Amino acid sequence: MKIETKTAHFSQALKLESGRILENYKIIYETYGTLNEDKSNVIVICHALSGSHHAAGRYDQEAKAGWWDNLIGDGKTVDTTKYFVICTNNIGSSFGSTAPMSINPSTNSAYRMRFPVLTISDIVKAQMRLFESLGINKAHAVIGGSMGGMQAICYSIDHSSFAKIVIPLATTAYTRPWAIASNKIAFEAIRHDPAFKNGNYEKNDLLANSLPGLAIGRMAGLIAYLGPNSLENKFGRKYTNTDGLYELFGRFEVERYLEYNAYSFPKIFDPLSYLYICKTMNIFNAARGSDTLEDSFAKVTCNLHLISFSDDTLFFPKEMEEIYDVMVKIGKEKQTSYKMIESTHGHDSFLVELDKFKDYVTDILEERI
Amino acid sequence: MKIETKTAHFSQALKLESGRILENYKIIYETYGTLNEDKSNVIVICHALSGSHHAAGRYDQEAKAGWWDNLIGDGKTVDTTKYFVICTNNIGSSFGSTAPMSINPSTNSAYRMRFPVLTISDIVKAQMRLFESLGINKAHAVIGGSMGGMQAICYSIDHSSFAKIVIPLATTAYTRPWAIASNKIAFEAIRHDPAFKNGNYEKNDLLANSLPGLAIGRMAGLIAYLGPNSLENKFGRKYTNTDGLYELFGRFEVERYLEYNAYSFPKIFDPLSYLYICKTMNIFNAARGSDTLEDSFAKVTCNLHLISFSDDTLFFPKEMEEIYDVMVKIGKEKQTSYKMIESTHGHDSFLVELDKFKDYVTDILEERI
Repeated sequence: MKIETKTAHFSQALKLESGRILENYKIIYETYGTLNEDKSNVIVICHALSGSHHAAGRYDQEAKAGWWDNLIGDGKTVDTTKYFVICTNNIGSSFGSTAPMSINPSTNSAYRMRFPVLTISDIVKAQMRLFESLGINKAHAVIGGSMGGMQAICYSIDHSSFAKIVIPLATTAYTRPWAIASNKIAFEAIRHDPAFKNGNYEKNDLLANSLPGLAIGRMAGLIAYLGPNSLENKFGRKYTNTDGLYELFGRFEVERYLEYNAYSFPKIFDPLSYLYICKTMNIFNAARGSDTLEDSFAKVTCNLHLISFSDDTLFFPKEMEEIYDVMVKIGKEKQTSYKMIESTHGHDSFLVELDKFKDYVTDILEERI
Repeated sequence: MKIETKTAHFSQALKLESGRILENYKIIYETYGTLNEDKSNVIVICHALSGSHHAAGRYDQEAKAGWWDNLIGDGKTVDTTKYFVICTNNIGSSFGSTAPMSINPSTNSAYRMRFPVLTISDIVKAQMRLFESLGINKAHAVIGGSMGGMQAICYSIDHSSFAKIVIPLATTAYTRPWAIASNKIAFEAIRHDPAFKNGNYEKNDLLANSLPGLAIGRMAGLIAYLGPNSLENKFGRKYTNTDGLYELFGRFEVERYLEYNAYSFPKIFDPLSYLYICKTMNIFNAARGSDTLEDSFAKVTCNLHLISFSDDTLFFPKEMEEIYDVMVKIGKEKQTSYKMIESTHGHDSFLVELDKFKDYVTDILEERI
């Protein structure tokens, strides 16, 4: 599989939903496979909160493959011998696209807290600019889970003629207070971390892993992504065998796992990016700009295939079912489908339980559904 | 209703499950109603994590009544014209009973991190000592929800001849990783709070509300107690009307609620107590000391009535159903009952949806079930 990582710079200002503008911006993105002559074999992949443009494949000597490598590749569901796959790093994220720690051209120093709050539609608009610059006006499909699913929904409403097929997974039409509350832990833990310094933290503090606020926020996220069943299956009540049961800070295995994964996170992710992206997810509402969800989804001309996971306790199946019900209500039942996958890995099911839904995605991509 | 608040001092050492001892200890407790002559009208109430001995009634000029005032009082379900009700503040808690901030007689300074980790059975053992000192050898019933339910379960196994009736609500026979993970947020947020100083925090810092770690831990708790449905019903996507939608720290109403309730908590609750109690809950396992749950519940000679709440997403109904199944499996179906109450207030249902189960509790107390 051919992997290419590129950065595109845009000097034309991006007008944001908030009324603010990004004077210029860049997007780092990755492609897999080869664009065919009539540019009709494009599949766009949208990543989740902590994801990146590195969706598949393995760089030289890289230990872990891209985050959806079990879906994307030669001969896989999203077959890179057939499709030209693009995954961009969302603006606001900290893997190379314009983000809070990028240089603000007005001040020549990092934006930090002056970075504008972005919406899902801003992120998608920036991606559309990239595709235009590549001469791509159509996609066969847009696929994304969680926050990537919010982007997919946004494509189906705001840019409905772009993709023939849109597949949002494990997401919602508007973020509920349950998910907002989980993100609130991150807001408070980061905001109160003395090393955060109201956004003026030192890079070295981050590298030394001395910004535990982000780790604690990440921990709340990990708990929400795993959910009760997954935690039970993975850890049960196993106790760390080097720790004492009656030691105050003695740990169950679940605690050790959370520590390990949470405290390694600030080494790869920027705290301001984390806050801005949480904000973007919190304020996502497919009905914004219309009076109702019905009005929004009335704009959908593509085929919208919704996939939820029975075990998802962050964005519950009923949240996706609601979108399907809206589509049916407004007479678009021929353009839509909804399937709940029986799963056991919580919200993360869309990343790990591929065997349970990849054939279904193949059927959608080959237009048998 | 006659309310009396008293403190009992015990000079005989309390041997703890961990092998450590409390050289001496005190218990603050409250009673409602009047003990009858043959001391046969006692009902013991056990409180939850952040609860206290003040379960019912109102002190002079007190704005808010005790935490289970809708259950306990003259003519109420736990009728104080009939029963003599006792609620103790658990040792380890910070409302007056011996706790981490109490003076360690060996050092003449506060225990702080040298306080021993307590188990539910230690807490119950300390309570039993109090009842003995009052000449009370029998209770009509023991009732408790959440961590109070763990105590109730412990009464039914370890002191089965004490109460005729035991009613655990919204609890579990052993804490699952889902609840342990939620508590982990508190452990990490408090541990990393610079004001915590490895347990050597200043009282003034607490009073000045400058220990946000405890507030953040409390926030994780509040989210777990409310659960997704309750948050949805209570707040939906209402946005604080003084805040901007595109401000990074602009807040949804759910966030404002969490802030308000979390940041007021360190004013009334001690961070070390919080950690020690979380630890006590984390390591609760009714099977400890026996080989299996079956072996433990084989000791139950009282009547065990289990009440769960459909909407409880901290201790799920299936966790209480499991206890019922164990009781049936070991041939104790005549001594037990299980009822799931349809509820909409998450784990907190046992505190707020009294109308849905108080008649059922009356039936249990009057031995019609």
